[in-house]
Amino acid sequence: MSYQVIGKSVKRVDAVAKVTGKAKYTGDFVEKDMLVGKILRSPYAHARVKRINTEKARALPGVEAVLTCADVPHIKFATAGHPYALDPEHRDIEDRLILTDKARFVGDAVAAVVARDELTAAEALKLIEVEYEELPSLLSVEAALAEDAPAIHEDRPDNVIASGGYAYGDLEKSMQESDLIFEGEYETGIVQHCQLENHNSYAYVDGENRIVIVSSTQIPHIVRRVVGQALGIPWGRIRVIKPYVGGGFGSKQDVCLEPLNAVMTLAVGGRPVRLELTREECMIDTRTRHAIKYKIKTGVSRDGKINAVHITAISNNGAYASHGHAIASSGGAKFRYLYTPQAMKYEPRTVYTNLPVAGAMRAYGCPQIFFAFESHLDEIARALNMDPIALREKNLVQVGHKDPLSDTRVLSCGIRECIARGRELIQWDRKKALYKNQTGDRRRGLGMACFSYQSGTFPHNLEVAGARIVLNQDGSVQLQIGATEIGQGSDTVFAQMVAEVLGITVDMVHVISTQDTDVTPFDPGAYASRQTYVTGMAVRKAALEVKEKILDFVRGMTDIPAGALDLREGNVVYAHSGEVVMPLAEVAMQSYYDPVFSSPITSDVSNNARINAMPYGATFAEVEVDIKTGKIEVLELFNIHDSGKIINHQLAEGQVYGGAAMGVGYALYEQLLFDEKTGRPLNNNLLDYKLPTIMDIPDIKAVFVETNEPTGPFGAKALGEPPAITPAPAIRNAVLDATGVAFRRLPLNPQHVFEKLKEAGLLDRDGE
Amino acid sequence: MSYQVIGKSVKRVDAVAKVTGKAKYTGDFVEKDMLVGKILRSPYAHARVKRINTEKARALPGVEAVLTCADVPHIKFATAGHPYALDPEHRDIEDRLILTDKARFVGDAVAAVVARDELTAAEALKLIEVEYEELPSLLSVEAALAEDAPAIHEDRPDNVIASGGYAYGDLEKSMQESDLIFEGEYETGIVQHCQLENHNSYAYVDGENRIVIVSSTQIPHIVRRVVGQALGIPWGRIRVIKPYVGGGFGSKQDVCLEPLNAVMTLAVGGRPVRLELTREECMIDTRTRHAIKYKIKTGVSRDGKINAVHITAISNNGAYASHGHAIASSGGAKFRYLYTPQAMKYEPRTVYTNLPVAGAMRAYGCPQIFFAFESHLDEIARALNMDPIALREKNLVQVGHKDPLSDTRVLSCGIRECIARGRELIQWDRKKALYKNQTGDRRRGLGMACFSYQSGTFPHNLEVAGARIVLNQDGSVQLQIGATEIGQGSDTVFAQMVAEVLGITVDMVHVISTQDTDVTPFDPGAYASRQTYVTGMAVRKAALEVKEKILDFVRGMTDIPAGALDLREGNVVYAHSGEVVMPLAEVAMQSYYDPVFSSPITSDVSNNARINAMPYGATFAEVEVDIKTGKIEVLELFNIHDSGKIINHQLAEGQVYGGAAMGVGYALYEQLLFDEKTGRPLNNNLLDYKLPTIMDIPDIKAVFVETNEPTGPFGAKALGEPPAITPAPAIRNAVLDATGVAFRRLPLNPQHVFEKLKEAGLLDRDGE
Repeated sequence: MSYQVIGKSVKRVDAVAKVTGKAKYTGDFVEKDMLVGKILRSPYAHARVKRINTEKARALPGVEAVLTCADVPHIKFATAGHPYALDPEHRDIEDRLILTDKARFVGDAVAAVVARDELTAAEALKLIEVEYEELPSLLSVEAALAEDAPAIHEDRPDNVIASGGYAYGDLEKSMQESDLIFEGEYETGIVQHCQLENHNSYAYVDGENRIVIVSSTQIPHIVRRVVGQALGIPWGRIRVIKPYVGGGFGSKQDVCLEPLNAVMTLAVGGRPVRLELTREECMIDTRTRHAIKYKIKTGVSRDGKINAVHITAISNNGAYASHGHAIASSGGAKFRYLYTPQAMKYEPRTVYTNLPVAGAMRAYGCPQIFFAFESHLDEIARALNMDPIALREKNLVQVGHKDPLSDTRVLSCGIRECIARGRELIQWDRKKALYKNQTGDRRRGLGMACFSYQSGTFPHNLEVAGARIVLNQDGSVQLQIGATEIGQGSDTVFAQMVAEVLGITVDMVHVISTQDTDVTPFDPGAYASRQTYVTGMAVRKAALEVKEKILDFVRGMTDIPAGALDLREGNVVYAHSGEVVMPLAEVAMQSYYDPVFSSPITSDVSNNARINAMPYGATFAEVEVDIKTGKIEVLELFNIHDSGKIINHQLAEGQVYGGAAMGVGYALYEQLLFDEKTGRPLNNNLLDYKLPTIMDIPDIKAVFVETNEPTGPFGAKALGEPPAITPAPAIRNAVLDATGVAFRRLPLNPQHVFEKLKEAGLLDRDGE
Repeated sequence: MSYQVIGKSVKRVDAVAKVTGKAKYTGDFVEKDMLVGKILRSPYAHARVKRINTEKARALPGVEAVLTCADVPHIKFATAGHPYALDPEHRDIEDRLILTDKARFVGDAVAAVVARDELTAAEALKLIEVEYEELPSLLSVEAALAEDAPAIHEDRPDNVIASGGYAYGDLEKSMQESDLIFEGEYETGIVQHCQLENHNSYAYVDGENRIVIVSSTQIPHIVRRVVGQALGIPWGRIRVIKPYVGGGFGSKQDVCLEPLNAVMTLAVGGRPVRLELTREECMIDTRTRHAIKYKIKTGVSRDGKINAVHITAISNNGAYASHGHAIASSGGAKFRYLYTPQAMKYEPRTVYTNLPVAGAMRAYGCPQIFFAFESHLDEIARALNMDPIALREKNLVQVGHKDPLSDTRVLSCGIRECIARGRELIQWDRKKALYKNQTGDRRRGLGMACFSYQSGTFPHNLEVAGARIVLNQDGSVQLQIGATEIGQGSDTVFAQMVAEVLGITVDMVHVISTQDTDVTPFDPGAYASRQTYVTGMAVRKAALEVKEKILDFVRGMTDIPAGALDLREGNVVYAHSGEVVMPLAEVAMQSYYDPVFSSPITSDVSNNARINAMPYGATFAEVEVDIKTGKIEVLELFNIHDSGKIINHQLAEGQVYGGAAMGVGYALYEQLLFDEKTGRPLNNNLLDYKLPTIMDIPDIKAVFVETNEPTGPFGAKALGEPPAITPAPAIRNAVLDATGVAFRRLPLNPQHVFEKLKEAGLLDRDGE
């Protein structure tokens, strides 16, 4: 296909708004005299609240309300940002109260205050007297799974949230038929999203007694539902508004603040109350990425054909279910589309512990499982004395592959080309030879790792999306979508799609970036890399409907059959020749003001995308390991993607830079640490939590291998999350290549690397 | 028809919001640090600006911009709130610049400042030095029409804006065939709307370089267009938001502030600028009601049959065209549907003068012409010694009447019943007899007057309207309309219509009261009493479409044909029996979350109402005239309406109380006065302008004669403006009845009455 706007690096539609500061975020709407809400958090990882005395806090001048678990609805609710399921078996686990009388992690919300200002609110928190009964803290999955472990939630006596996985083929037989069996254990750490804008919201009751919540969220329509569920009020009585959002990465795909904020405003007669978390609070009481432990057993033939894969996993979910088992489960499902062993068994378990709640984070379980399996593969290649690329190429999926467990087919697959491009760009063969048999203090190595992903959540979840387009009198259009711009550039991509269909320039498409559940078409929001692919279908459908209405209107004006017409460069033209029939603006004016046929042209569509598409890709990394200090420098990093047709290269590169940087942090630096006895967070701030800065990030190269996905709008597949998946295993494999040491735990920070290298005898006795 | 919600006095949907102060008006959004705009006004009624020196003003600290006519686009534009017409001949007159270099009335805007606060802005105005060249002031229509009068606008050398009227039948023949010819001259004064909320707006440039204007307007979509036209920028680059509005009565059916406000923000780099008129400014530089002078000649048969009517009129339009000749023209057209003389000729002329600009005001020309003609009729009745009711009854229109000049037919007409009800309620016959041959200082009299009106502006203007409905998960709905709630209660009426169609209660309908041209369906706005009738059609259509989609969705769920189903009391039921099939909320949930058939139910419709309907009515008044002081007390006032089916009695009564009170003010108190030499306003404030207060208003009785208008949604016709039409002639006729003196000029304030009674010899020489 040849496109006019699709594939062009048009400027972000919100670029000027954002660089000039005109883009309004939730905090920009906060009025000076708004009341302030603050949360009292448990100092214990596991404790029962025996008594709370709020008298002194209530008596403090300027305190408007003090709330405890006795003051909030006693309705358990789920916070995960998934579409609702009519099937009760398919719903998220309802294990949360707005305020709890049993603290399940250090930081759990046991009370809250509303006061006239921050200082008064903080002061009031100190005046709340809580008497706790401490319970044994279960700070690891092992502790939680121990026979005598107390139940963190009464209705889950074994602390297991869920354990469903999948299996196909005859695993035992395939293992037996294999020449070699490899086993390995791998482990990832807890990290946090650290998006720029902390979670914040404000809420008030409007004149019609409806609760209005303005929130920095990825999922306004879901927030509306969850607030309704948590408070036990009809969902139509709630309005959620999402201004510009300063990043989310999945942490805002959870309903963290809004139910409490709603209760706060109700407690003060509907006056506006602001609730803003500090960075320290964000890092422990929003969501984290699950730490997962894997055991992998793989049966391989001597020539490198993978016959059987058996993976067990234990996912540390922390204190509440949130997305829960969906992470381990979905990571496993997305992983299934890359290699095609005859038999496979995936046995994940997701476990409650007394740690902060894990939830969605960019790539939803995939960074973990691909770290494990791609590391495992390099160990196999080493044992077989095969090139890691050759081993993978022997086992890669093909176009036309039908998933053995669902109806999903791979209709486009550029993984081989991605690998070929990486091999060439990093000069794999030349350097591999060069770096053989290194000695000395600084050793270089090459590593690579592949991934598969999905575009949205079908068939697991509903993938409905909505779009509304209005043609203005000047031939420009407004576009409303329920999908949310959170920095990823979706508004721009949607504008390009509309412009492409309507034959206009992007500056003629005004995207309403603010979602308001009162007027915004229904769409669950930004997650699962679904927007370009899933919401894109709805946007394209809406644009096609507007186009059809325009051409039909012109038929009415001219008697030229609509089928003979097209829209190009702001004009209605003859499709066959491009000869201009009339300017689009003239049609638009007629559609508004024709005395007889006036009918302003709009479309208001919903699309249920009952399909999915697999993006693929690979990361190639070159590292230099300082053997004496354990410090790893990433010299080169190629993050290569088959995301189908790229709608906007510049934006796509932005996604890759951000995602790959996150992957580098995951590989080398980041880990949220807790005191092993008390469960208290040790580094929940940006000084102590080692988020890489621009100086720590290599010069990432974004590479695209464009395929044409037949199910995607304009051939597109997902791209948002994939860049974050394989930097860690690629770097880890490069370190293995450089040092011969197989790291099996993230992150590879100097302490970890140093200890492991020492253990492997690469340093002499004095540690030199 | 039997209705569940239509016809019920349900509480206003915005009642709580308004009484609790939660309803936000434009002024409520103003931020403390917003820049302030102010206007420099001409002290002369007619003068050329020879030179403006803004240096000192610009130098004042805190002044951000000073604007003169040199700084604004040189594009003449029209301000009237009419839908745009594709036919250039049918457009409003473009005679306005945002700032002028020729002042045409005292108060005309010649310069403006933007400053950091009110005080600085006011100070800066004083520092602007303007040198004027005074021109002869044309302060009356006679002066403007004089042979040697200078042109107020260069392209209208005779100062006549337009003079089109209408005629049908053979006027000369019908006059000749008449037994008697009556002639009279009548005259109305200039009054002002005096709505509670002064005109105010604020504007800024958003991050996409679009101009955003938040304004207290009746016509947001028209404001968008006119700002685009005035500034010469595409209309899609403008966004207009209308919060709650504190009344308009037609003064906000004009684009008074917004183009200047747009220029102001552009002048300060897009920073927000607030522009708020004081009451004094509002009264001279928004709009007024046209003073019109009528000459009427009527040929009547001896038995009271009106054969021929010849009316000439001169309408004083003030300095700029605004709605211009449409007022005199439309008043004459609406008047045509009441009586049916064989021949009629209406010859209005609308004239520029150097007075403030006249525009739309409640009932758009009808209070003037009905004052004239209904006064005239009573003089005829007196001369014929007929009861005024009998005279009218002999000449009233009938159902089925086809207008001789258009295709419009009278399909419902309750005027006879209105008269009969008034006659009975005021005890016409008994009191008429009682008050015959009164003497003494206090004399009582009865008067009545009839009117016809229309419901919207068809066929003169386009009557397109839009509505969008979204079904929420809980079975409640959101309604968006482009039509504007400005206090009249339209949001409530629309909510009732939706509730009626969908079989739900009004509290399940959430009306989005804020119009935002970015997301609000297109509708020109609130005027011409069009909303219930015209927009009501669109609302009903949208609701029917949602109902159809709901029932079709249920068919998909159950296989019960949609035709066998209905919606009642929040349930889907069998139409024939009312047996519940399932709750509406269950359908709604399925429409959102069915894995296969998910398709949230919405409708987004436009309706072009190419039809009109005539409401009718009469006012009956009883007065007591204090002969010695000229003071008139209205003892009783029945304001009686055939507005078809009344959707909400309580709201309808509210309209009647407000409109009739306005009519009483028009009859007895109000008049905007100007110095006869300089044209300077003498009473443009609420102290000196005699707006009646609650103590001056009689206990108005609202009476409805319900007919079923077959073209109206649920049988409804217009009601918003009609109550204001006939209080003045009814009171005037009652004064004639009491005193025998025929007043022919409004208002009947004590000075006027006293002088006239004295002239008539009712007082002795000393004025006693």
